[in-house]
Amino acid sequence: MKAVKEISYEIVETSNIFDPRNPELGKIPGGRRCPGSRLVVMDESVDRLFGSRVRKYFQFNGIAVKYLTLAGGDEHKTVDQMLRVASRLTEVGTDRVGTPPIAIGGGVVQDVVGMAASLYRRGVPYVRVPTTLLGQIDGSVSAKTGVNYEGCRNRLGTFAPPPRTLIDRSLIATLPERQVRSGLGEALKMALIKDPYLFTLLEEYGGQLVADRLQDTGTAAASRPGREVTRRAITAMAEELQKNLWESDLKRIVDYGHTFSPIVEMTALPELFHGEAVAMDCVFSAVLAARRGLLPPEQLRRIIATVRGIGLAPTHSMFGDADVMNQALTDTMRHRDNHQYLTLLRNIGDTVFADDITEEEIRATARAIDRLHHHPETNAADLCSTRLAGTPH
Amino acid sequence: MKAVKEISYEIVETSNIFDPRNPELGKIPGGRRCPGSRLVVMDESVDRLFGSRVRKYFQFNGIAVKYLTLAGGDEHKTVDQMLRVASRLTEVGTDRVGTPPIAIGGGVVQDVVGMAASLYRRGVPYVRVPTTLLGQIDGSVSAKTGVNYEGCRNRLGTFAPPPRTLIDRSLIATLPERQVRSGLGEALKMALIKDPYLFTLLEEYGGQLVADRLQDTGTAAASRPGREVTRRAITAMAEELQKNLWESDLKRIVDYGHTFSPIVEMTALPELFHGEAVAMDCVFSAVLAARRGLLPPEQLRRIIATVRGIGLAPTHSMFGDADVMNQALTDTMRHRDNHQYLTLLRNIGDTVFADDITEEEIRATARAIDRLHHHPETNAADLCSTRLAGTPH
Repeated sequence: MKAVKEISYEIVETSNIFDPRNPELGKIPGGRRCPGSRLVVMDESVDRLFGSRVRKYFQFNGIAVKYLTLAGGDEHKTVDQMLRVASRLTEVGTDRVGTPPIAIGGGVVQDVVGMAASLYRRGVPYVRVPTTLLGQIDGSVSAKTGVNYEGCRNRLGTFAPPPRTLIDRSLIATLPERQVRSGLGEALKMALIKDPYLFTLLEEYGGQLVADRLQDTGTAAASRPGREVTRRAITAMAEELQKNLWESDLKRIVDYGHTFSPIVEMTALPELFHGEAVAMDCVFSAVLAARRGLLPPEQLRRIIATVRGIGLAPTHSMFGDADVMNQALTDTMRHRDNHQYLTLLRNIGDTVFADDITEEEIRATARAIDRLHHHPETNAADLCSTRLAGTPH
Repeated sequence: MKAVKEISYEIVETSNIFDPRNPELGKIPGGRRCPGSRLVVMDESVDRLFGSRVRKYFQFNGIAVKYLTLAGGDEHKTVDQMLRVASRLTEVGTDRVGTPPIAIGGGVVQDVVGMAASLYRRGVPYVRVPTTLLGQIDGSVSAKTGVNYEGCRNRLGTFAPPPRTLIDRSLIATLPERQVRSGLGEALKMALIKDPYLFTLLEEYGGQLVADRLQDTGTAAASRPGREVTRRAITAMAEELQKNLWESDLKRIVDYGHTFSPIVEMTALPELFHGEAVAMDCVFSAVLAARRGLLPPEQLRRIIATVRGIGLAPTHSMFGDADVMNQALTDTMRHRDNHQYLTLLRNIGDTVFADDITEEEIRATARAIDRLHHHPETNAADLCSTRLAGTPH
């Protein structure tokens, strides 16, 4: 048996998405509308911020919808919450094609609703409206859905992109600073693996981007770094995913920052945001690369400085624990066909895969990270020195 | 974003599958083996019948495996059972590619393990060994996995065919007669929609096929109808699925027999086997077609006689309940984009889609079926008569 599946999905940039005169939010992907109701799922903070505008939108446009509000937060990314969405789809009477649900919210709601939609009747289409920076620049092009299970991050899930994703950058304006920083953690990852110019934007405007929540502050090019950062990060992600959407190739540079972080996120949960953990993993992997002599110390210095400039912490005590880091690599290898396939930086924007990292190398890197954690002033050259590697903890 | 996914999977016919010298059962699809253990899932009756041979097989071949035995039966086709498989995959340490689990059993185990595998790490490959006739002729080529949810049949599931399915017809030899009859119900469906020759085999050899459990009784062609029926049914199914694996076209003749039966199966559960319910739906739909003047009464007579020849009941009291049948069609339409897309027979092996069935037509058909249920001797012409349609129940 052989079969070919073609998938196409669109990512639409819009503004004033909840303005009743903007038709984008109500559109049915593919245009086939059924008479029944559609389900609109929001997370609690989205409902608080935009719920009344969302309700007015559908009322004004005469679109029959019903609502479900879910708790956000990674601890709610569960099978149970996914099943709640499925139950509500049945109550609403969701059809196979013509009444696609709409998910408005952060990554957790997107992943949970996406998984429910992809399983319901073995897959109904849905519409994604990411309201966090992370969701807009990372989740928007992704085909992934999923929930955590038994302490493992995204252990159950599907590859099922919604046919339609709507991006409204102005939604970011109301986010707490910490969420913006977390989103920039993923943008930093994209910059490090393939876009040196994006890196320089983050390096130069990191703090300002957070303060301005990536909104335009004027018409001059220098007043629009938020627009540039968003677009470049989305484009870079789209380029990488398009060629390997179902991950048949397990060597993925976009997994940079996602090798050591999953175990930390699941253990430290809900203390860390995803982008915060990713940034720490980026630093850990950069130190590892620098200690191998791949990444010049000066570039390591710039990376750590940029992480701090965004207002993210470059480390966490757990990244200094060699046992945890070795366990993390072992766990991740199960996800990569028993290979490390670890993306290492040769330069900012230039990578190479490694499959021969030793346990001792991880230990030495963890010691360097532990030093950085306790002595933030440690310079990049010292983080790479052999002496430090040999010093007992 | 656009992406293309190519899927290919093989269905391998083998014999003496549990003979330690037969390499088929231990082979890894694609050939990439990881050092870890593989999970082998059986249902209770398979474990009872073949468990010790299965264990000897892997022991003899030095293949590291761990086991999970699940309850069969449609009432165990649940989210909980699916999650049990997922938990066990974690315990066993299942990798992304190199340690695919093996499901040996009937439809429930196949659907449940298939769904768990398709969600685990967003999809790991698995190997399917169907041990029922239904699983061999219907499930083996199917891409579908799923579980029942909140009283709805297969409400949650995925399209995720295993890269490798092994068919050993000799496994059918140990089945109870009722399971063989149920399997022949699906073969009958394939015959009715596209293979008149397969129909004549079922018409002529129905009772014998059940008594012989489709095993060869000699070398003459007439002593091998079981082989012919199995192959023709699988081939017909493969032809239909290959062109529409993800059901992007919701007009599917293979849905014949699956429009009115789901509600009956879920309500009458676990009284009816799947193939039993399908056969009843085939008869209901055939009466509907005959009452429309599409299917000649003589062909309706042959269909009912063949159902009985296989030892299946042509009706059940619930198919005589017009309210249930109308509700069934409404429910199924949600799965077909708000269309009926009802396959009707024009002849045995020749179909047409209808999208204009009226509630009254369903009522009249239900009355005819109710008559057949209470008066099994009612002839085909009477089932089609207008007089009967007008008679109050």
